Amino acid sequence: MITTPSLVLDEQKCKKNIEEMFEKAQRNIVDFRPHFKTHQSKEIGRWFKQLGVDKITVSSLSMAEYFSDEWNDITVAFPANILEIDRINKLGQTVNLQILVESTDTVQSLRSHIKYNAGFFIKIDVGYNRTGINPKNIDKIDGILHTAKEVSALNFKGFLAHAGHTYKCRSKEEVLMIHNESVSRITKLRERYETDFPDLIISVGDTPSCSIAEDFSMVDEIRPGNFVFYDLSQEQIGSCEFNQIAVAEACPIVAIHEERNEIVIYGGGVHLSKERLEHHEFGTIYGLVAEKQRNRWGDPIPKTFVKSLSQEHGIISAPAAEISKYKLGDCLMILPVHSCMTANLMDYYLSTDNTTIPRI
Amino acid sequence: MITTPSLVLDEQKCKKNIEEMFEKAQRNIVDFRPHFKTHQSKEIGRWFKQLGVDKITVSSLSMAEYFSDEWNDITVAFPANILEIDRINKLGQTVNLQILVESTDTVQSLRSHIKYNAGFFIKIDVGYNRTGINPKNIDKIDGILHTAKEVSALNFKGFLAHAGHTYKCRSKEEVLMIHNESVSRITKLRERYETDFPDLIISVGDTPSCSIAEDFSMVDEIRPGNFVFYDLSQEQIGSCEFNQIAVAEACPIVAIHEERNEIVIYGGGVHLSKERLEHHEFGTIYGLVAEKQRNRWGDPIPKTFVKSLSQEHGIISAPAAEISKYKLGDCLMILPVHSCMTANLMDYYLSTDNTTIPRI
Repeated sequence: MITTPSLVLDEQKCKKNIEEMFEKAQRNIVDFRPHFKTHQSKEIGRWFKQLGVDKITVSSLSMAEYFSDEWNDITVAFPANILEIDRINKLGQTVNLQILVESTDTVQSLRSHIKYNAGFFIKIDVGYNRTGINPKNIDKIDGILHTAKEVSALNFKGFLAHAGHTYKCRSKEEVLMIHNESVSRITKLRERYETDFPDLIISVGDTPSCSIAEDFSMVDEIRPGNFVFYDLSQEQIGSCEFNQIAVAEACPIVAIHEERNEIVIYGGGVHLSKERLEHHEFGTIYGLVAEKQRNRWGDPIPKTFVKSLSQEHGIISAPAAEISKYKLGDCLMILPVHSCMTANLMDYYLSTDNTTIPRI
Repeated sequence: MITTPSLVLDEQKCKKNIEEMFEKAQRNIVDFRPHFKTHQSKEIGRWFKQLGVDKITVSSLSMAEYFSDEWNDITVAFPANILEIDRINKLGQTVNLQILVESTDTVQSLRSHIKYNAGFFIKIDVGYNRTGINPKNIDKIDGILHTAKEVSALNFKGFLAHAGHTYKCRSKEEVLMIHNESVSRITKLRERYETDFPDLIISVGDTPSCSIAEDFSMVDEIRPGNFVFYDLSQEQIGSCEFNQIAVAEACPIVAIHEERNEIVIYGGGVHLSKERLEHHEFGTIYGLVAEKQRNRWGDPIPKTFVKSLSQEHGIISAPAAEISKYKLGDCLMILPVHSCMTANLMDYYLSTDNTTIPRI
């Protein structure tokens, strides 16, 4: 029985999300290297393995370590942190490790300290402006390749991008525009470098693009992560429907305030995260409440949303008619704004048949 | 050596914050029942014990369990969650436990299931409108007291409020106004109920009020929590100065983008939390960068702030002259927006002499 805030995972929805993305990769004849930063669970990882997936993406070396006893081919999609060279060297002994590089300074540092073979991708900025090199900055790319040539343990793998600016889109058309533009920018590098590096890989893969676009024929690899669960942000972008969201936080009702049409749940920022979104109808929200269906959940309940969060409390705004349906001790099913952040706060998932699925 | 995002705790600043609040409680001859939800650490709890503090506040039963082997008098300042009755009963056997009640429904449920003695406070809403009963709603208060009279294991302790609306204040004057208004509202209940309950306790204690107000002579107990570390939100409210903030997240630099005056740190929403504030100069920020001083830190660096956070990345905006001082692998010291949320994401604190201080 659920007595405290618990992240319920609908295995059927999750496996369907995985299968659909796997099939899209197969149709496009591109490698599928799912990002495991969202679920961070060996058990969920095995659902990918069962389909034949054999390579993964993570966003930290600690995640790479966690998955390294079950996965042999791991890309750490985060700028190589030279302070963690010992972990890079340790992982390099046991798995095929790929790291990201975006400056000659990083390569210089690796030159002095790297001991075991690692592949590296050059991170390309396709317009998100978070990390990476502008694809027109050929001097910088050449500088990295030139310096790396002298480091026998470092093997150039290709170019990698994350078009994270799709998260600001609010329609499929906008996402497709960014996807096409991003692919066009990064694939120009293939033309330039494929003579010297005939096996170079072009890797892309934000969840909005991978969910909405159909054509990935120009790239070699996709790396979406969030799609495994989806969430309200992805629904708002147009990447998924509500019924594809595979996790919901079950939160006990601890107080009911009819006089202001509010319910207080045990479920705060330490359970859901403080991630928020601007809803067209409700303004800033921290979650929506989905209809409870036995151990699962259905669509969002109209006019009902998470209005605010403190450390342990959540405040639900709902119409009087809705509020009258509940009593203390009932659990509300909260659809999270950003499932990666919510999952990160939990020690495990609770499956719909009430078993626990451990996380990192 | 710090290689990954680490929450550094300046023991001197922290102990000074504790001593000042302890002395303020002593001057006012009120009980000091600090809220331990911010630090969630037995070791830091002992710093309070050394001063003679013998009672604490927490915000969940799991925190109460964690602290119960070192503390014998614990108030769980969160509406009693009737689904956790087994934990309430278990704790009731070993510590003096106080819980919060704000409806007769809760008392009815407890009547059937509570087995061991517990004190209860009636939660009063002094204007924050999150939880609690309007102090003018005497019928509701009387209803609770009437129902509770029939439950021998439940002992009425008094009235408890949290004036959380001080967090919206932006000056000491505004905080003082709310504090005075809140105290005046809740103490009216003493006048009404002290004949029947001569030992009733009036308990208040948000960090802004407890930091700024000097007069607590009308109440019996204060319960501030955040003051142990403070943070940028408290500085903005006027509760503290920058030099009282006792924690900073040390984050390695993983990329430098001079062309857009940005530094990329290893330090994202999973390390700092997505808590944000509106800064008068920079707009929405997720942290400020403090000057590094050996193992400690000084004041915020002008024009330098955390502009955005993704799961593992933080983007720092800084003037070119500032950026030129850094290289890959340097650590930036980030002052958190909300230290409770940041601390909650960490497994331990790193003291300035490089020892680890464990958390729950």
